[in-house]
Amino acid sequence: MLKFLKKLSVEERQLANSIKNITGFYPGNIFLYKMAFRHRSVASELSGGIKDSNERLEYLGDAILGAVIADYLFKKFPYKDEGFLTQLRSKIVSRENLNKLSEKMGVGKLLLIDKDSINNKSSVSGNAFEAFIGAIYLDKGYNFTKKIILKRIIKYHVDVDELESTELNFKSRLIEWAQKERKTVEFALEKEEGKGRNKLFHVNVLIDKETKGKGVDFSKKKAEQYAAEDALKKLIG
Amino acid sequence: MLKFLKKLSVEERQLANSIKNITGFYPGNIFLYKMAFRHRSVASELSGGIKDSNERLEYLGDAILGAVIADYLFKKFPYKDEGFLTQLRSKIVSRENLNKLSEKMGVGKLLLIDKDSINNKSSVSGNAFEAFIGAIYLDKGYNFTKKIILKRIIKYHVDVDELESTELNFKSRLIEWAQKERKTVEFALEKEEGKGRNKLFHVNVLIDKETKGKGVDFSKKKAEQYAAEDALKKLIG
Repeated sequence: MLKFLKKLSVEERQLANSIKNITGFYPGNIFLYKMAFRHRSVASELSGGIKDSNERLEYLGDAILGAVIADYLFKKFPYKDEGFLTQLRSKIVSRENLNKLSEKMGVGKLLLIDKDSINNKSSVSGNAFEAFIGAIYLDKGYNFTKKIILKRIIKYHVDVDELESTELNFKSRLIEWAQKERKTVEFALEKEEGKGRNKLFHVNVLIDKETKGKGVDFSKKKAEQYAAEDALKKLIG
Repeated sequence: MLKFLKKLSVEERQLANSIKNITGFYPGNIFLYKMAFRHRSVASELSGGIKDSNERLEYLGDAILGAVIADYLFKKFPYKDEGFLTQLRSKIVSRENLNKLSEKMGVGKLLLIDKDSINNKSSVSGNAFEAFIGAIYLDKGYNFTKKIILKRIIKYHVDVDELESTELNFKSRLIEWAQKERKTVEFALEKEEGKGRNKLFHVNVLIDKETKGKGVDFSKKKAEQYAAEDALKKLIG
């Protein structure tokens, strides 16, 4: 057994081994990872009134993951514009995708949680995944975390090309939804701003004559997509 | 004169010296910085139809800046919860604050732009600032960029404690706004989810009886703040 493992409790040793299995490395500071996998339902209160749950680490991990994925897509797609990159990144770090990722990698299983105390379990797994990234970052630094995310997570568990090709068409999704719900959909140009190639289109989408989403872009088509995405978020979350 | 400066054109040398003045370092790859300061109104089209403007770098810089500030606040405020950290970060990286920062540091002055071709100049300076961060990151890596942001930007140009203490009270700002506009404001509890200390409050804010913002939090007070913030964004941008 590795020397540093001996200093840990049985539970800590199990956690250290699980992390090694998932990522290929042994954690340095085990306390960070214990916190990453502690849901607020089983956390205790610290001085200052805050809890030693994984939520602060989740906030940090979310930002670090965002930066790493931004960098990765920037380099992977040198001829795509920032709208494309932003959208693809949103898909990768969407709650839905992170939940899946977390379950697939076995990260969700490490989470300590009082299941009776919560109603909505839908995002706890993805949240723990982000907290885990936050813990790795504090423990090992940015470059190491980036390597783990790219080599251990993206490479094996995220099919970026598939995510790209199945690019969400928000406009057609909204229209489908509206047909099912028997509502009308309308895209309306609210205003144009600027001139020539720098003209900005402001598009509203109306559901049953009521504005439900807004989109702005230099391309009218994209502005409609953004408006549809905005409306979908409000209508079906 | 430094040897590498000799290889640059007169304009590039000026840019390199300006960057040295602002940040304390000479750029390695001057082309990244030229792109960071090239607004789309003066950019040319590359193959693939995208422009060699600063927008892709802005996307990247935004993510890197977000990560660095998340890390900084996480460590500066060990006893504040993620809601506080998220809100304070939003204030630091708000378009308004980045525009100010950019002008104060002289970054805005480096921007090449065709002023006649654009109507809305309000955010170009802050955007260039983000693109500049993106260029530094690609040129020098994360740890260097973090050092520049913390030691050269936050330390001299951002009063985090003041930003914290003048914490925006969105609820009172919304009420003020509504009084001026002669509209009614109402906060309504839409639903409660979960039990005990894990109860989530869903709050709607209604302006003239119409829902204009939503907020969710474990604290009802905070949920109201978030709802007010959401409404303010939609109502006054």
